[in-house]
Amino acid sequence: MPKYVYRFAEGDMGQKDLLGGKGANLAEMAKIGLPVPPGFTITTEACRAYMRDGEVPPELRVEVTMALREIEDTLGRRLGDFHDPLLVSVRSGAKFSMPGMMETVLNVGLNDASVKGLAEFSGDDRFAWDSYRRLIQMFGKTVLDIDGDLFARALDDKKSAVGASTDVDLSADDLQDLVTTFKGIVQDATGREFPQHPREQLEMAIAAVFGSWNTERARLYRRRERISNDLGTAVNVMTMVFGNLGETSGTGVAFTRDPSTGHSGLYGDYLSNAQGEDVVAGIRNTLPLADLEQLDPTSYGELLQAMRRLETHYRDLCDIEFTIERGKLWMLQTRVGKRTAAAAFRVATQLVDENLITMDEAISRITGAQLSQLLFPQFDGDAAKELLTTAMAASPGAAVGEIVLDNAQALERTQAGASVILVRRETNPDDLQGMIVASGVLTARGGKTSHAAVVARGMGTTAVVGAEEIDVDVEAKEVRVAGRVLHPGDVIALDGTTGEVFLGDVPVVDSPVMRYVSDGLEAGLAACEDDAMRELLQAVDRVMRHADAVRRMRVRANADNADDARRARARGAEGIGLCRTEHQFLGDRRVHIEHVVLAEGDEERLAALETLLPLQREDFVELLEAMDGLPTTIRLIDPPLHEFLPDLTELAVKVALANADGGADARDVRLLAAVQRMHEQNPMLGLRGVRLGLKIPGLFALQIRAIAEATVRLREAGKDPRPEIMVPLVGSVRELQIIREEALGILAEVGAAAGTELDLPIGCMIELPRAALTARRIAEEADFFSFGTNDLTQTTWGFSRDDVEGAFFADYLENGVLTISPFETLDADGVGALVSSAVTGGRSTKPDLHMGVCGEHGGDPESIHFFHDAGLDYVSCSPFRVPIARLEAGRAAALNREDATA
Amino acid sequence: MPKYVYRFAEGDMGQKDLLGGKGANLAEMAKIGLPVPPGFTITTEACRAYMRDGEVPPELRVEVTMALREIEDTLGRRLGDFHDPLLVSVRSGAKFSMPGMMETVLNVGLNDASVKGLAEFSGDDRFAWDSYRRLIQMFGKTVLDIDGDLFARALDDKKSAVGASTDVDLSADDLQDLVTTFKGIVQDATGREFPQHPREQLEMAIAAVFGSWNTERARLYRRRERISNDLGTAVNVMTMVFGNLGETSGTGVAFTRDPSTGHSGLYGDYLSNAQGEDVVAGIRNTLPLADLEQLDPTSYGELLQAMRRLETHYRDLCDIEFTIERGKLWMLQTRVGKRTAAAAFRVATQLVDENLITMDEAISRITGAQLSQLLFPQFDGDAAKELLTTAMAASPGAAVGEIVLDNAQALERTQAGASVILVRRETNPDDLQGMIVASGVLTARGGKTSHAAVVARGMGTTAVVGAEEIDVDVEAKEVRVAGRVLHPGDVIALDGTTGEVFLGDVPVVDSPVMRYVSDGLEAGLAACEDDAMRELLQAVDRVMRHADAVRRMRVRANADNADDARRARARGAEGIGLCRTEHQFLGDRRVHIEHVVLAEGDEERLAALETLLPLQREDFVELLEAMDGLPTTIRLIDPPLHEFLPDLTELAVKVALANADGGADARDVRLLAAVQRMHEQNPMLGLRGVRLGLKIPGLFALQIRAIAEATVRLREAGKDPRPEIMVPLVGSVRELQIIREEALGILAEVGAAAGTELDLPIGCMIELPRAALTARRIAEEADFFSFGTNDLTQTTWGFSRDDVEGAFFADYLENGVLTISPFETLDADGVGALVSSAVTGGRSTKPDLHMGVCGEHGGDPESIHFFHDAGLDYVSCSPFRVPIARLEAGRAAALNREDATA
Repeated sequence: MPKYVYRFAEGDMGQKDLLGGKGANLAEMAKIGLPVPPGFTITTEACRAYMRDGEVPPELRVEVTMALREIEDTLGRRLGDFHDPLLVSVRSGAKFSMPGMMETVLNVGLNDASVKGLAEFSGDDRFAWDSYRRLIQMFGKTVLDIDGDLFARALDDKKSAVGASTDVDLSADDLQDLVTTFKGIVQDATGREFPQHPREQLEMAIAAVFGSWNTERARLYRRRERISNDLGTAVNVMTMVFGNLGETSGTGVAFTRDPSTGHSGLYGDYLSNAQGEDVVAGIRNTLPLADLEQLDPTSYGELLQAMRRLETHYRDLCDIEFTIERGKLWMLQTRVGKRTAAAAFRVATQLVDENLITMDEAISRITGAQLSQLLFPQFDGDAAKELLTTAMAASPGAAVGEIVLDNAQALERTQAGASVILVRRETNPDDLQGMIVASGVLTARGGKTSHAAVVARGMGTTAVVGAEEIDVDVEAKEVRVAGRVLHPGDVIALDGTTGEVFLGDVPVVDSPVMRYVSDGLEAGLAACEDDAMRELLQAVDRVMRHADAVRRMRVRANADNADDARRARARGAEGIGLCRTEHQFLGDRRVHIEHVVLAEGDEERLAALETLLPLQREDFVELLEAMDGLPTTIRLIDPPLHEFLPDLTELAVKVALANADGGADARDVRLLAAVQRMHEQNPMLGLRGVRLGLKIPGLFALQIRAIAEATVRLREAGKDPRPEIMVPLVGSVRELQIIREEALGILAEVGAAAGTELDLPIGCMIELPRAALTARRIAEEADFFSFGTNDLTQTTWGFSRDDVEGAFFADYLENGVLTISPFETLDADGVGALVSSAVTGGRSTKPDLHMGVCGEHGGDPESIHFFHDAGLDYVSCSPFRVPIARLEAGRAAALNREDATA
Repeated sequence: MPKYVYRFAEGDMGQKDLLGGKGANLAEMAKIGLPVPPGFTITTEACRAYMRDGEVPPELRVEVTMALREIEDTLGRRLGDFHDPLLVSVRSGAKFSMPGMMETVLNVGLNDASVKGLAEFSGDDRFAWDSYRRLIQMFGKTVLDIDGDLFARALDDKKSAVGASTDVDLSADDLQDLVTTFKGIVQDATGREFPQHPREQLEMAIAAVFGSWNTERARLYRRRERISNDLGTAVNVMTMVFGNLGETSGTGVAFTRDPSTGHSGLYGDYLSNAQGEDVVAGIRNTLPLADLEQLDPTSYGELLQAMRRLETHYRDLCDIEFTIERGKLWMLQTRVGKRTAAAAFRVATQLVDENLITMDEAISRITGAQLSQLLFPQFDGDAAKELLTTAMAASPGAAVGEIVLDNAQALERTQAGASVILVRRETNPDDLQGMIVASGVLTARGGKTSHAAVVARGMGTTAVVGAEEIDVDVEAKEVRVAGRVLHPGDVIALDGTTGEVFLGDVPVVDSPVMRYVSDGLEAGLAACEDDAMRELLQAVDRVMRHADAVRRMRVRANADNADDARRARARGAEGIGLCRTEHQFLGDRRVHIEHVVLAEGDEERLAALETLLPLQREDFVELLEAMDGLPTTIRLIDPPLHEFLPDLTELAVKVALANADGGADARDVRLLAAVQRMHEQNPMLGLRGVRLGLKIPGLFALQIRAIAEATVRLREAGKDPRPEIMVPLVGSVRELQIIREEALGILAEVGAAAGTELDLPIGCMIELPRAALTARRIAEEADFFSFGTNDLTQTTWGFSRDDVEGAFFADYLENGVLTISPFETLDADGVGALVSSAVTGGRSTKPDLHMGVCGEHGGDPESIHFFHDAGLDYVSCSPFRVPIARLEAGRAAALNREDATA
């Protein structure tokens, strides 16, 4: 028999799964003796039972009775009593905060009789009737599902009738009239009178909170925030306390320290003679919390003590809600306070300085996502900006460009050299072309998982979505917003981190944190404009230095040329995990590959390859020089060769038209024949990677020779080049064995000629399920493994990123098949299972086999923790993400140490 | 310290890995007391050590000394003795027979001195010198690597010089002269004289046999026969016995029973006063073995007894080689005799009738491949045929057609309605188009793993390859063979089972065995032309009935329409494992899919789908009626919808040309836009299967409704339809859950309207690695799993069959990455590991979860055994392969029972 009800003092903060976040923290406060109004929490398990069975479990009723009676006995008040009634609030409280999504009912226990008792107890008729009015309104809307406008209109009518401008101007009699009107609304809408029995009110309110878990908007919110639908919510039932019982009462919010600098001390706002609702409504201006010291020194002192107690207990910045009822302080809520990215760094280091936490704890509280926010370029804070609207920040960055409304405009303007922002009502796969060339994407509809958001994040393009104030009229070629009418060609600016949309060109400045991670602390400090930023940089530097000190995994970068390599190295990369050599075959060199493809016979092909040798050697000399002394993994050519040739359909049309017009160019005809011959139905699953190396003699040999000769050249110049040769797309140990044999021959030959031993590591990508499944065998021929989790994700799921990300990922995020793109964060259940099994398999053959990951997941925080746990030696990611990976690798190690200690 | 040398009596027939096939059988004969000449076997382990170290292990020399001395002591003769020399043969003997691939040296121990001893012992100078001459010739060629033509020419010169027409006409003096000449050849070629020391001869011969394992031709043979290069060969050293020592000597081969009918009794051939070589050379006609009874009744009696002993011991048909040396019988070799497919059935059932083996053993000795040979149509045995040449049978069947030499001719003639045979020197990926339309493929070059062979087997096209007598002259448009000159348009016929190529049209007849499996025993017997065939049919019937009785796995068929379903059912299919509904959207109905694709908005699309409902319902009524009472798994539509639309490039060219010519058809323009929009880089990894069902509302619903309504219709007609709904390409349990919910709704609705409960099983394909890896979860929503091993192979290996089978499989079979196409036989290490893990995962959630396979592997013998061991409940294969699958499923069960007993 499960226990469905926990008195506050029975739980603790570790029980968020069972008691929800709010309930667990209330329990913790009660446990450490802080003044929490008596109450209890109904577990999420009860909610799950309610969802499963469609009704409140009967045992719950009994447990609620027991808990309620205890409160009544303690306080000497009874729920709905005629004289001194106990009133309670009923609030939802899920494991994860879902602000505004779910239901709250206050003042439960009021009825036609107890309202008089409340008036008696408070000595304030107006207060009592206003409280009753609020209960009926809230209960009607929330529990009885009556259209809220009916109550709002009746309230407005009453104000008009008595000439009151605000609610406050209504008298006790006016409010008593309103109660009668409201009860009439309930009677009309539900066919029965407003429930007078306090216990019935309570039970209906509890069921309504349970039910609110599954409203459409709550489900939508959870999909967006990737919260499971199965969790359910807890329900907190708490004795009502009132901050609006005169000048000795009040309500406020407080932080245990400055949430932006981290400096210790009490920060917050206070409003006397008010309830929480009033603070939200903003009727009166709040006071700084410090003023409470004059107003009510006793309560202030108690509050200070409570806050200090809380911070010592949670060892983190907490925020709270409190109420003072006639000079008595009550703590209504606490939680570890939310903070900005900058504050996270500052608060954490301040807590260390105060000896409240260790550096290990500090870095485990700061996320790579927070660091990443600090790295993006930002709009110049000093520049004059005209804000058009603020919507959902879907993909970070700062983008400025001309408005375009469709693909054609986007292509035309970008080809003319313009930077463009694609503005659409919403996007769908047809808009891909435009999204690819645009600097930013702005949509009027859709959330963080809409097509526009998913695709833009995938491409790293700045995006703001769901800007509902914007009216996109494609017919009229107009964008209407904030009373303005914009046209294609007008310039706007998007802030993908804040969701702001500005009119006109806004200057973009690099972030000093980016300057710091790229050029070091001195340069970063020099770029700072104020002390706060300098303090932040110092905090970031401390955090990064600790992360570097504790992490087990090395961080490398994916870089294809010396420039990128230098950039990555400056940001702390300890090697190159992936150099994609095919990128060196693009541009002017494409023609060489055409020669290789069009070659007739081995001799012609080898001659064509020969022309590439000096070019490749030069590439590698530059790259290895830039990475002098650090491991540099060079992947042999991977994509199918036809990717270097023109598009089949375009070429076929060109040749057909030219033929119709008198005769096509002979070279085009030959090229078309080659393209047709090499055309593949599924190039991703075709003749690429090691298959190409085995099929086209001399291709891999050329690259291996170039690597070997570059190594010799640099060694002769006194350098320490450390290339590692990586074979792509291996599915069987035999493939690797053949290439390895060939490579060893070339290395021996080049080494012998130069009088040096070229014992370069030779390893392979693990990017096919079969490679992962047969890793034990493959390890026999491999000096290292590098997980290619992009391709591994494609084959494990059987979808190609190019084809499906835009086509149906948005649907899949909506319908819950995916909670995040598996190309963003590693799919631990599927792809991760293969990674783990390959690690085990590889190490069973070679216990010290060096392993890393070079897919894009190498820069994703959640995935980095997976790789740490899986036992990899390094992650490799884009140069931009190197600092993030360093931090997350450090956090993974620190968290593991904490787990081990705990 | 390994033991490298086994005296014959030390080993047994279980040690084929260590002693090779020949050595293990010699050991077994020695063990059961049959007269085997004294000798010993050097293990394959010694060969592997030789390959690894490049030299004979020193311990081996010592062990050989010990074994040799034992023989010498037993026989009282010494190797190379002046008077009564011991001579030995040195023969290779690998685990798997590799006829003609490896080396043998006879008469080792003869030299200038012992030749005289042999003459003395045999009383026959000519015999002694001829033996010495043979040793030098064989040793020179095999061990010393001297061009064999040098010896052959010298022999011819001698015959010319003395006017001898055959070797036999040479006198002892002539042969002694030849020995001198041969020794001169050895001196000239090697710079040293022919080794006179017998032990040196022996050691060189042993090393030469080891070395012969790695000759180019041996490696080529093993690649073709899929024998591992790592096994190595054993070496058998055996005392020479001579069948050519006069009329009381002789040599022969014998079978323990008639290898074609299976009837018990002694069958074979005998040649008196001869050696094995002479039988092979065919100088004199052999005698039926029965004649030996008159010639040498004692030896004949001993032989009869030995054969009976052998058969009782091996409990199978054995063949042997024997020699009678001056009235003394010696057994030189035995093995379980090879037999034709027909003989396999007859021998096995005969052995059962004689109570030598059980039916379980009988069926485990007959393979599905043998049954399949009996099922193919054959050329009419009575028809006059002109044989052009015989080459390698690469892909079975009987094909007749006009010769075409290239793709263009192939397409032109088949479009004109002709059946064509593509004749090429060899094929490469450029020839695919022609291969696809051809009825048969004939090449002059290449083996069973050549491009032509691999691709033809993959497509089920008859092929004969490596017909080296054929000269294909594309320039002259001629095919020259057997003195004839053929031209395109001339008709030839290929027998893909025998490798024969005939001139002209040859009538093709169905096999009576095919008649039997399709229409039953009566019909099969009626189609037989002779008693032998009738006996064969009876044997096949007994075997099939036993296989059906013992197998655990059910056999279903893949069939898309009622005709195929009936055919499959007639052949014993116990259900349909895969009905591909997309095949029902082809032809005239393609236009409906075009409407679905071109529909603008949900309403138009649902209307377009609506028109398909009655058609689909009719399809399912017919199919389910044909399979009345049997499970019928219907897969919802799988391929991307653009597969039903025209080809992008063709359409683009058409529209471009029409535009240049005044303006394209509006419908074409609209269609082109749709095709472009839906174009996928990798359709195999695109919007297909369940993704399509989730993306296009109403598509799966239409099919599920059609299934439901068809079921209702048939139930109302008193039938017992048993459809199972199968969801393709599931990668996540949530996908299945959503479709399942939708399906349950439709089934409930249609069922309620008809007053019947439609509790149809709903399951899914397991054809993505992720589905296999998360099978435990997917099983929560699945009533059954069906492994789609074609797609699973594609994603596990990361190659698409369309793209790679022709492009590089031939290379991969040559270089040893593949030993067989993983689309033919399941890749147990990779794909199989996923299957096993999915079985375990699925059954951990639902211990009784029904599981089968519907990929093409379901009809492949080796794969069927894998599926049996993995614990599947059924296999589903093409109707043609149903009987083969029944047999193999029975064998798998029988073999398991034997293992359990053993």
